[in-house]
Amino acid sequence: MNSTIETILNHRSIRSFEETKLEDDTIQTLVESAQQASTSSYMMAYSIIGITDEEKKQQLQDVSGHPHVTNNSHLFIMCADYRRLTYDADEKTKENMEKNLENSEHLMTATIDAALAAQNIAIAAESMGLGMCYLGSLRNDIQKVDEILNLPDHVAPLFGIAIGVPAETPEKKPRLPFETVYFENEYKDHEEEIRKFNNQISDYYASRSSNQRQDTWTLQMQRRFQNPIRMDVTDYLKDKGFNRR
Amino acid sequence: MNSTIETILNHRSIRSFEETKLEDDTIQTLVESAQQASTSSYMMAYSIIGITDEEKKQQLQDVSGHPHVTNNSHLFIMCADYRRLTYDADEKTKENMEKNLENSEHLMTATIDAALAAQNIAIAAESMGLGMCYLGSLRNDIQKVDEILNLPDHVAPLFGIAIGVPAETPEKKPRLPFETVYFENEYKDHEEEIRKFNNQISDYYASRSSNQRQDTWTLQMQRRFQNPIRMDVTDYLKDKGFNRR
Repeated sequence: MNSTIETILNHRSIRSFEETKLEDDTIQTLVESAQQASTSSYMMAYSIIGITDEEKKQQLQDVSGHPHVTNNSHLFIMCADYRRLTYDADEKTKENMEKNLENSEHLMTATIDAALAAQNIAIAAESMGLGMCYLGSLRNDIQKVDEILNLPDHVAPLFGIAIGVPAETPEKKPRLPFETVYFENEYKDHEEEIRKFNNQISDYYASRSSNQRQDTWTLQMQRRFQNPIRMDVTDYLKDKGFNRR
Repeated sequence: MNSTIETILNHRSIRSFEETKLEDDTIQTLVESAQQASTSSYMMAYSIIGITDEEKKQQLQDVSGHPHVTNNSHLFIMCADYRRLTYDADEKTKENMEKNLENSEHLMTATIDAALAAQNIAIAAESMGLGMCYLGSLRNDIQKVDEILNLPDHVAPLFGIAIGVPAETPEKKPRLPFETVYFENEYKDHEEEIRKFNNQISDYYASRSSNQRQDTWTLQMQRRFQNPIRMDVTDYLKDKGFNRR
């Protein structure tokens, strides 16, 4: 196994960091790593906003609810971005393009572009001994994040990445069994394998070093999705010119 | 610079592969790499389908239009998957969960989960000396891909990954300049920098070793989005239980 795969397999989300800031050249290496990811049709349909302003960090933490939004060495926000695609287009061309980019297909394309880029940041950071955690919790109030970042039309925040020198070494969290995630040639239902995984995860929660509890994966999912969450994301996206048709 | 970052920065999409198949343990390492990526709220909201059946590969190539859909050492299809989340839920719980998962927020969550996992496959493969290319072109007929893979409700194909031993060494394609992708604290429009990039990319297209042409990034984007594409993705997703509200 090579060191890259070791880095990948050794991932755990880090939520507690030492009090240091990333050097500018580290930030540049991480962004360049992001940029070298594949991109759909050469669109490069994302922008990355680094937050250094402490007041903005606090506002973002208020949205997210997590202390590692402020307590980190650097905070990136990944945004879907179709805005630059229409720069210098005449009015009619611009109108056509915007209409064509406002479908669900292109919400997906921009989201995929941004996530591929983000994962390059994650792996590059971890390869340097840094730790990271994604922050989907910024979508708890996506409109507010939009305002904090002063985003124009056709730019929308997707998630954050908190990065820093790890101040904790959490256990690796079990993943779904291989045979419930990977299938050959067609989809296969896998209820029995998920039941086995629930037994395994139940042992993990009962025996891990902190936050011990009785739980299974299935029960967690049932609790989490028993009530609607983030229903405002739908209207926000439409308002910004995404996912309209 | 460490070897992981070298691998990341050395990426170029490979579309021509030697005639070899991946070993089972390589496939397993790639899938395990995918699985170790971060996941939103522990949902692991994706499945990966490996295509070994030559007839199915040909059908998928007919959708994509690209010969490297059949000519590769392995083909993965990344799918958004909320199906297993409701296994073993009682009827009322299941109905509630499905309704709550059918919003735009959760199309994004599953898409992000799947793309983070996919990029781990890409980097892991490249770290072994393999090459890869994403296949968003499978969404040219997303319903047809769904049928080929026999996908149930709440599972939808997102994109493919063709992997293999590279039989070509394409040049690295220029990326947008750092200052058009990365901003501090808030979004900044960047028309002038994109014009400079257009000059740079125009030189690249005029001087590269194959497919020389006169072009800019802005003109490419204008041509590509002058007409609607993949408008059927919208209805397909709703039909499968995604992005309904």
